[in-house]
Amino acid sequence: MAARKYLILATICGLLVSVLAQEDWAAQLRDEMDPARIEKFLRILTEKPHMAGTQGGYELAEYVRRTWENQGLDSAHIDPYDVLLSYPDPDKPSYVALLDGSGNEIFRCSAGEPQLDVDPPFNMSGVVPPFGAYSPSGVVERDLVYVNYARTEDFNTLKDEGISVEGKIAIARYGKGARGRKLRRAQDRGAVGMIVYSDPKEVVGTGRGSDRMYPYGWYAPGTAVQRGHFLYGVGEGEPLTPGYPATDYAYRIDQSDSDQLPTIPVHVIGYNDAKELLRHMGGPLVPSSWKGWEGLLDIDYRLGPEMEGPASKVRLDVNVQTEVRTIHNVVGIIRGREEPDRYVILGNHRDAWTFGAVDPNSGTACLLEITRALGEMMRRGWRPRRTLMFVSWDAEEHGMHGSYEWIEEFGKIMSDRAVAYLNVDNAVRDDYTLRARATPSLKPLLKEAAKMVPWPTADDGDTLYEVWSKRSPETNATDSPPKIDLPAGASDYVPFVKRLGVPILDIAMVHRYIITYPNFPLYHTAYETFHLQKTYIDPEFKFHRLMSQLWGELALSLAESWILPIDASEYAGTVQGMYDWLVDGYGTKFEESAISLDALQSAVANFSQAAVMFEEELSSLENNTDPLVARMYNDQLMQMEQAFINPQGILYQKFSRHTILSSGLWNTETFPALGDAVRRMGSDWTDPGKEDKLKELKQELSIITFFIQSAANSLAKPATPV
Amino acid sequence: MAARKYLILATICGLLVSVLAQEDWAAQLRDEMDPARIEKFLRILTEKPHMAGTQGGYELAEYVRRTWENQGLDSAHIDPYDVLLSYPDPDKPSYVALLDGSGNEIFRCSAGEPQLDVDPPFNMSGVVPPFGAYSPSGVVERDLVYVNYARTEDFNTLKDEGISVEGKIAIARYGKGARGRKLRRAQDRGAVGMIVYSDPKEVVGTGRGSDRMYPYGWYAPGTAVQRGHFLYGVGEGEPLTPGYPATDYAYRIDQSDSDQLPTIPVHVIGYNDAKELLRHMGGPLVPSSWKGWEGLLDIDYRLGPEMEGPASKVRLDVNVQTEVRTIHNVVGIIRGREEPDRYVILGNHRDAWTFGAVDPNSGTACLLEITRALGEMMRRGWRPRRTLMFVSWDAEEHGMHGSYEWIEEFGKIMSDRAVAYLNVDNAVRDDYTLRARATPSLKPLLKEAAKMVPWPTADDGDTLYEVWSKRSPETNATDSPPKIDLPAGASDYVPFVKRLGVPILDIAMVHRYIITYPNFPLYHTAYETFHLQKTYIDPEFKFHRLMSQLWGELALSLAESWILPIDASEYAGTVQGMYDWLVDGYGTKFEESAISLDALQSAVANFSQAAVMFEEELSSLENNTDPLVARMYNDQLMQMEQAFINPQGILYQKFSRHTILSSGLWNTETFPALGDAVRRMGSDWTDPGKEDKLKELKQELSIITFFIQSAANSLAKPATPV
Repeated sequence: MAARKYLILATICGLLVSVLAQEDWAAQLRDEMDPARIEKFLRILTEKPHMAGTQGGYELAEYVRRTWENQGLDSAHIDPYDVLLSYPDPDKPSYVALLDGSGNEIFRCSAGEPQLDVDPPFNMSGVVPPFGAYSPSGVVERDLVYVNYARTEDFNTLKDEGISVEGKIAIARYGKGARGRKLRRAQDRGAVGMIVYSDPKEVVGTGRGSDRMYPYGWYAPGTAVQRGHFLYGVGEGEPLTPGYPATDYAYRIDQSDSDQLPTIPVHVIGYNDAKELLRHMGGPLVPSSWKGWEGLLDIDYRLGPEMEGPASKVRLDVNVQTEVRTIHNVVGIIRGREEPDRYVILGNHRDAWTFGAVDPNSGTACLLEITRALGEMMRRGWRPRRTLMFVSWDAEEHGMHGSYEWIEEFGKIMSDRAVAYLNVDNAVRDDYTLRARATPSLKPLLKEAAKMVPWPTADDGDTLYEVWSKRSPETNATDSPPKIDLPAGASDYVPFVKRLGVPILDIAMVHRYIITYPNFPLYHTAYETFHLQKTYIDPEFKFHRLMSQLWGELALSLAESWILPIDASEYAGTVQGMYDWLVDGYGTKFEESAISLDALQSAVANFSQAAVMFEEELSSLENNTDPLVARMYNDQLMQMEQAFINPQGILYQKFSRHTILSSGLWNTETFPALGDAVRRMGSDWTDPGKEDKLKELKQELSIITFFIQSAANSLAKPATPV
Repeated sequence: MAARKYLILATICGLLVSVLAQEDWAAQLRDEMDPARIEKFLRILTEKPHMAGTQGGYELAEYVRRTWENQGLDSAHIDPYDVLLSYPDPDKPSYVALLDGSGNEIFRCSAGEPQLDVDPPFNMSGVVPPFGAYSPSGVVERDLVYVNYARTEDFNTLKDEGISVEGKIAIARYGKGARGRKLRRAQDRGAVGMIVYSDPKEVVGTGRGSDRMYPYGWYAPGTAVQRGHFLYGVGEGEPLTPGYPATDYAYRIDQSDSDQLPTIPVHVIGYNDAKELLRHMGGPLVPSSWKGWEGLLDIDYRLGPEMEGPASKVRLDVNVQTEVRTIHNVVGIIRGREEPDRYVILGNHRDAWTFGAVDPNSGTACLLEITRALGEMMRRGWRPRRTLMFVSWDAEEHGMHGSYEWIEEFGKIMSDRAVAYLNVDNAVRDDYTLRARATPSLKPLLKEAAKMVPWPTADDGDTLYEVWSKRSPETNATDSPPKIDLPAGASDYVPFVKRLGVPILDIAMVHRYIITYPNFPLYHTAYETFHLQKTYIDPEFKFHRLMSQLWGELALSLAESWILPIDASEYAGTVQGMYDWLVDGYGTKFEESAISLDALQSAVANFSQAAVMFEEELSSLENNTDPLVARMYNDQLMQMEQAFINPQGILYQKFSRHTILSSGLWNTETFPALGDAVRRMGSDWTDPGKEDKLKELKQELSIITFFIQSAANSLAKPATPV
């Protein structure tokens, strides 16, 4: 008995020491973050272009690996994959030209972005010219139709005007949706080519006060062009190895068998060139909401397809090649002390279309500073309770191939062991507020962590939390500020949440009008240079420090806590909100069709109830020091998120498996598959022609009910009837 | 420091005590098993028929639940599902008749099995008449074609003879394959009805010496008929709720949308009736291997389709209904002491076509005796380290609906928490030897456990292990005896292994010629009575005790061990064997087609190597008493099996997910999907028409390579590069 008492005492003492130590380490980590060092990292990272699959990309991978090794992580290694990438033909530039009636060129779009004289200077020689990645090669000479954002509703408007893109080249502006979806919609409607341009409305004058155009300010000049990939799916993984990793031995399907690759050529241009094309277009005037910013594009916007003299046709000459090349994820590890088999993963992609000083290497610089600081702490004797893993992804720009293939390769291990994935893509786009996305269960943690981070300027508050709360209020009345979005969008957190059901969060410092203009003006242009960061965004790297502090704080909380800071009740609230949205919008329809929502309502209530009971049990457990007991509760918190994963995928999306957090095709604010099924019903649910759709709706209703009940079960006390 | 020393000492003492105690408890459990009590349980269980979805079935569920409650388990509850079941129309008996040229009946098969006078008596009144479950209703009058076992090769032989079943009724004998597959093959070839009969070759004189026919012995009389279901798939789950549980709120697809249900009527008969049909058949004589046992069926076996006078046609009049009814799984729980969230599950189905004295209630009686004994031990202060769960499944006979729906409902929880599933279906069919199936990793445990169980008669050895080893030698030269099969077949372990990748084993005491005659003669007949067990199989219930002892021993080992008795190297050996079979049989073909097996070979070698290293680490760990360390290794052992699960299912089998242990369509002795792909290639791999098949083969090769590598990764030291 004496021994047992000592045992208990010893354990409690150990725990106290470790609790005290933990607080101490978190403060040390915050204090350790050094703006000057982050600046230095960013300068190195942005010296040369480092697109995926290039020598510059590989060299930077090796730099990150070496850096982690030198910083004292337990290990740092490269996980390579051989994936389908896409590059412009170096010998045959792609271009868009205006032809006159005799087929002579009367105007040709610029072949690339001009070198600019800035300090520090940058070397354009290695910069890839603007191109639409995964475009097929081809030459078409046709009329032009302006399709606005190329959304479904835009094509509907055109149809109402009697204008079709069939056999034509579509010209769309960037914004309001993914490139690949724009292209697919044009392609599906018979377009034979597409041009996408950056309208000044998206890239100039987006509310940053009196700022000017690069190199004199933050805005995009008319010569700047946004690159990007045109794969159809967001989140299907590398196109040739569907569902399994693109290892060296992997079988690759034929490109013609992939449903991800576009089949019509596409090219991207800036607004100077766009203006020349648009001003030669004929046809009816566009609806006023379709116009860009007339301050810079002072033309009559017309729908086409006729061209106006002297222009007669547009030539689109695209020369883009696909090639399987090796990409390089770099993985650094600090092995956990008590629970080495529980992983807290910090990730950021490293590949950039050009210099990447914002996207993504502002994040990489922060990541390297965090690992440097943790390396320091390890030398002082620190080691986390759980394993910390740092991943520098490759080929995110080509379609998140690095993270997808890694998740395909290590999916089983990660769904068993990953506690959370913390993503930073663009760490610092601007200095106004934090933009955050998170699985519901991590929202409270994010708010708590933000309270620990000092705001670096004399401003709206002393902590990040205060400023963020004021500047990003929650518009949804049921949530408290600051605003945290659910994980829609596209960055390397996607495979973690949609494939595996690992809790994720994604953070960035952004500008004031992020809701209206989700990107920053120079996004994916040649001008994402160190000069841009240093001169116009974060000259003192204070906000890089802030991001490092926040990211580090989150990592330590998750890696050190006795009970994981994963919040079941917050999740239940989100699910309840999705249910309410459904009932508010469609309750009457369900009732009229005699489809009961009772079972769904019960499941939602059961999940809430299970969360409350789970948390009550947890709080009654406060003095428990049995590591197996803590592990049991922690495992349940991990299982909760995974309970939502449907191995068969959700409706129409084989590889998107999260029944709550996948993005439906319609982007409703309810359960994605059920929301899609509801939208497919249209307004008249009694139409006999919709019988099959109604069956689908009923099946989706019972499937989502089951998955929510399943999440409730995962929170029930193990080894008791549920 | 003093405290820490005490801590270590205390932990070691505790462990020693628990190790000693554990051995003690295992012996107590063996000693506690009482043949008289098992006999009593069996008598109660077999008093009335208890088919799934009937009052008798429900009453027995309640009996089991009450019994567990009274025995002192921590909880006992019922998990109900509403599943599609099938019953004969009570008002319109199904039958087969011979018609003469004028359409008059000249013979009608018996409507059911006759009551027999035995002690103890049994009451036929509630016995369901013989029927083919899930047959559609219908009347057809056609010629008859004898199709032997209705295997693919049998139909090929018929084709060579110029005989087709198109528009005919096929008559097949039982044996060499599942009912549903026989029917589907006939249906696919245009048959309009089917009759399946038990040939005396399968049910009489199968090597049990001088035994006689029931009620004077173990063999089937000519009036006995084997019932059974004719669903196509083995292991697709309940037909109307594919992939999700058949809860009360579940959406059910239309029966016409299910690919599981047969579309032509089928009926089952005994050999007396079969003789009358067969002896009126004309056409060519059958190949000699197609004949049944001429000792009892002393007729000329002919292929048909012409009938011989006076018979002209056969009438098949089937009246079978499907209905969604509630089934009842009973779940009993003994909550684990240290790891309540790790489950060792013992399962047996409870539903029987008739009285079930062999199938399955010989198993149920053993299960109730084990729970009784454990209840006793709990009163003496025992509680297992991990949770023990006991499940009495319903509707196994209709297609494993109870276990499948439960696995669909609790799949996420079970794949996280289930350590192993130990199945007993027919516990005692005879007294000759043990028949065992197991996932490779549980084979060594099974052998060790068998060493602890005394053989109850003066015989070939003192322990079950000795007798079993002599009587069931391993035919495969690379394995050591006794023989343990991989988990093919069909009982409630299937969803655990094929859907989730939970290690399973399945054990039964069987007769001498089990390889040739996998069933016992009275299987699924009305004569599976208590009298049969008591008089001819296990009069003293010694072998029921032996089975209880073995099952209990296995359960305690898994529930109490510090490190789980799951063997990675044994698994690696199995995988190596599958690789060798592939290379031996098809290595040249792969070479000729320039398809490299190097990556597969490496993965197989990596898995073996990972297993060895894992075990070396484990043995270096012998004195470690940190429960989190043990948990980490145990979790890896659980993850190893699950690493083989492909969420998308294997080739052509959406819901069969185990890449090693699923059954391929061709039943090769290699990786099932790759084996199927290889067989689809036929003998000429260079045929240009096979290009698509060759692509499929290459893809399957890379998929299986990946999953084996994945299993190797799961065994690597966590938080290290793999």
